Amino acid sequence: MASLVYPENVSYVDDAQALRKAFEGWGTSEKAIISILGHRNAAQRRQIRAAYEGLFQEDLVKRLESELKGDFERAVYRWILDPEERDAVLANVAVKKSGDYHVIAEIACVLSPEELLAVRRAYQTRYKLSLEEDVAAHTSGDLRKACYATNLHIYILRYLYHVPNDSDNLLNSPIIFQLLVGLVTAYRYQGPEVNARLADSEADVLHDAIKDKKFNHEELIRILTTRSKLQLLATFNRYRDDHGTSLLEALSGEHGDDFKKVLQTAVRCIHDHKKYFEEVLRNVIKKVGTNEDALTRVIVTRAEKDMKDIKELYYKENSVHLDQAVAKETHGDYKDFLLALLGN
Amino acid sequence: MASLVYPENVSYVDDAQALRKAFEGWGTSEKAIISILGHRNAAQRRQIRAAYEGLFQEDLVKRLESELKGDFERAVYRWILDPEERDAVLANVAVKKSGDYHVIAEIACVLSPEELLAVRRAYQTRYKLSLEEDVAAHTSGDLRKACYATNLHIYILRYLYHVPNDSDNLLNSPIIFQLLVGLVTAYRYQGPEVNARLADSEADVLHDAIKDKKFNHEELIRILTTRSKLQLLATFNRYRDDHGTSLLEALSGEHGDDFKKVLQTAVRCIHDHKKYFEEVLRNVIKKVGTNEDALTRVIVTRAEKDMKDIKELYYKENSVHLDQAVAKETHGDYKDFLLALLGN
Repeated sequence: MASLVYPENVSYVDDAQALRKAFEGWGTSEKAIISILGHRNAAQRRQIRAAYEGLFQEDLVKRLESELKGDFERAVYRWILDPEERDAVLANVAVKKSGDYHVIAEIACVLSPEELLAVRRAYQTRYKLSLEEDVAAHTSGDLRKACYATNLHIYILRYLYHVPNDSDNLLNSPIIFQLLVGLVTAYRYQGPEVNARLADSEADVLHDAIKDKKFNHEELIRILTTRSKLQLLATFNRYRDDHGTSLLEALSGEHGDDFKKVLQTAVRCIHDHKKYFEEVLRNVIKKVGTNEDALTRVIVTRAEKDMKDIKELYYKENSVHLDQAVAKETHGDYKDFLLALLGN
Repeated sequence: MASLVYPENVSYVDDAQALRKAFEGWGTSEKAIISILGHRNAAQRRQIRAAYEGLFQEDLVKRLESELKGDFERAVYRWILDPEERDAVLANVAVKKSGDYHVIAEIACVLSPEELLAVRRAYQTRYKLSLEEDVAAHTSGDLRKACYATNLHIYILRYLYHVPNDSDNLLNSPIIFQLLVGLVTAYRYQGPEVNARLADSEADVLHDAIKDKKFNHEELIRILTTRSKLQLLATFNRYRDDHGTSLLEALSGEHGDDFKKVLQTAVRCIHDHKKYFEEVLRNVIKKVGTNEDALTRVIVTRAEKDMKDIKELYYKENSVHLDQAVAKETHGDYKDFLLALLGN
């Protein structure tokens, strides 16, 4: 269930005029912005944008960008977009930052196949190229060209002398590209059919692939990027039952920071995305120095969907209410806005 | 332009009743079937199916399958389906036959991004799994598992002793999987923007990838599977201008039959799919022993789209009318049906 609280009947014109008023006069009235936008669902926000543009011949999103700043501005900007536009923006930010590739996996694996398609459409409209094109170009290219010869040397030496696989990102480049492109281009089967025998055999394929490590990542990538979520759940369960450890635990032995992070994110999001988001929030809050981008991302993307469930999970795991934890980690308008989205 | 000739106003009930009559009595009246179904467009055929089912509580497609046989039956069956259903069936047949993998590339590269999506949806509805899942499972799996270690030996030996790359299909297995899955999962950017500098640099990347052969197929696959068709056209042109030979000619040096065929099909279909289909028809007709599957596929899939243009191209290239060539290669009801679709 959603955490967002909003009135059913809203006058979009009144909202647009109230926002305009908040921008004018002595400084911006952030409180007014929060009290309106923090309590409107996606359809209502879309109408407010349209009403605002009609009344004032001005793009509300651009005006908000110019009026607000810092974490608050970023949170409002993310929030006011349609979900598919927002995810396109999040993916575009993540694609440029190798440390954030897991965000792309998160989007690809949490969304339903049709929602992911909507994001791919929004990405094209906004950036004039396809999401997979951008992901592929950023995760391959120069880095990969440079490391091909190197990789071969490393493979040969490791193979001939049985040298264990070190953690090095060079080696991850082609496989992280395959994995990410596979995840964002997936249009998974959405029906209820699950093939138990296939789950059985592919649990073994996964086990072999992880055990061997170096040379058979293609099988791991193939299974994770093409099978339906229900089929993968069956395979994950089978893996745990047959091999006495969960796939996720087994993957913790994987080398290469980026690749491992993307892989684990994909498995987590497919397995139980609410639990995954609870963990992201927990890590953000536990760490010294808050990662506002992650905090904003989770709250903004889930507020209208299942944030209430995530809050319950959070309380169960931490014996602290998420609202209290967020209030402690943040301040000012940013804090008030996040708390509004959390249902306060 | 289409080659199919059909009346604008059709009584679906009359058509359904005439078909029913053709099935009954002394043997099936193939002539009646051809005269109706050979002159109805996709929307009309859909209505006839619905009317037939309503009137006789029977699936027209199944009834046709049981009444007809051989090449004629296969052609009618392909034809009566909606285009996206038909392509899903064609892809499903091709995925099980390594010699026909190029048909998958043909479907993926000729269709528009939205049409390809429709095929992926139809595939899921029909086969209860995703197209890419099926492609990935068929082109990887056992073969790939078995050849990983082998490949490594080959790579090492070739690298250490500068042994040229032989034609062997073992080596192609992982890359053909990447290429095909990349092609079918593509949702290419469809806008008009073309980046000339990118075309320039990627023409060089392609040139290097092909020149090196063994180790950089990922770049070739990345570019072919993610860039927009217009962008690829610019890259292909740049390639020809800068390197004095077309990409297609350069690819003829590629090893591995299946991989090369898929690669060339993709490039041809992106470059000029009408020319590609003309070549397919020419090869079918030139060869001793007709490949009816290919002949049926091209005529059935293009009759409602651009078969008239393909016929003109064919005449230009062969100084023989396609209708005459087809009439010479085929016979009986199959011949009459194809000729009907060709506009006779």
